Amino acid sequence: MERISSFNQAEKDFFMMEAIKEAKKAEAIAEVPIGAIVVYQGEIIGRGHNLREHSQDATSHAEMFAIQEACRKIESWRLEECQLFVTLEPCPMCSGAMILARVEEVYFGAADPKGGTAGTLMNLLTDQRFNHRAYVEGDILAEECGTLLTNFFRQIRAKKKKTGQKE
Amino acid sequence: MERISSFNQAEKDFFMMEAIKEAKKAEAIAEVPIGAIVVYQGEIIGRGHNLREHSQDATSHAEMFAIQEACRKIESWRLEECQLFVTLEPCPMCSGAMILARVEEVYFGAADPKGGTAGTLMNLLTDQRFNHRAYVEGDILAEECGTLLTNFFRQIRAKKKKTGQKE
Repeated sequence: MERISSFNQAEKDFFMMEAIKEAKKAEAIAEVPIGAIVVYQGEIIGRGHNLREHSQDATSHAEMFAIQEACRKIESWRLEECQLFVTLEPCPMCSGAMILARVEEVYFGAADPKGGTAGTLMNLLTDQRFNHRAYVEGDILAEECGTLLTNFFRQIRAKKKKTGQKE
Repeated sequence: MERISSFNQAEKDFFMMEAIKEAKKAEAIAEVPIGAIVVYQGEIIGRGHNLREHSQDATSHAEMFAIQEACRKIESWRLEECQLFVTLEPCPMCSGAMILARVEEVYFGAADPKGGTAGTLMNLLTDQRFNHRAYVEGDILAEECGTLLTNFFRQIRAKKKKTGQKE
């Protein structure tokens, strides 16, 4: 069965804007600006933003927090009728968490050429060998999502140059 | 540079027995018996066992808890000089978490033909495209690790048969 999207373009943009709001929360505390939300029946039931440096925990990705909050909200590890929006293409850990939680649809903003596993390096979310496959769509407000990241890294480089710190 | 193991066979078996102890904690509370530990300089600094049903959180895998505890212990998201032992071959989420945490060496017990991504379906931990690669070795006390799982599922099937519940 071919999976189709539950949303029209305006709805996709609306929810990605909510993920971008999350990314900006990360940016505000000097974390790499990546944000994610989980949607259930049109309502946002999980939110998260990258917190790796503050938590000093390698698993502190935006998507993980959004999935964990969504599981708490619906009191189930199965997010079968949920959609996830994330500003950057998910890494293997987060793609794997989406498979485990059986997220129905995954939307991302900017592609990640270095580690994206929702279509760029590979697509774990549609791999027939796993026991769950999701509908996957990238390039949702990709420019806004990507600009957040490039500006963030540009500022870090400028700061390092100013203080003479090695990159 | 080819990575080599830090341990001899007796040490590998010793640490896998510790992961098996964790798996038995899961079994004791009717969770699928999978356990993991993280080792740093010969000392166990993280432990975890599967808690998916109790937590109703899809991300509650043994390896995630072990990694998170280890990060807290050494106050860093980088587990670069750490080794991880897990009774079952890791899934994409947990393999991804190990890449993110830059775990140096990964040892698993039983292979997972349905979802293992440390050599069976694919090997995310040695994929040259990611920014970290680990030394990976399976088949450590594989029979003990696998028997724990097959006995667990046999008991579940027997219970279901007795109560007439569909599988």
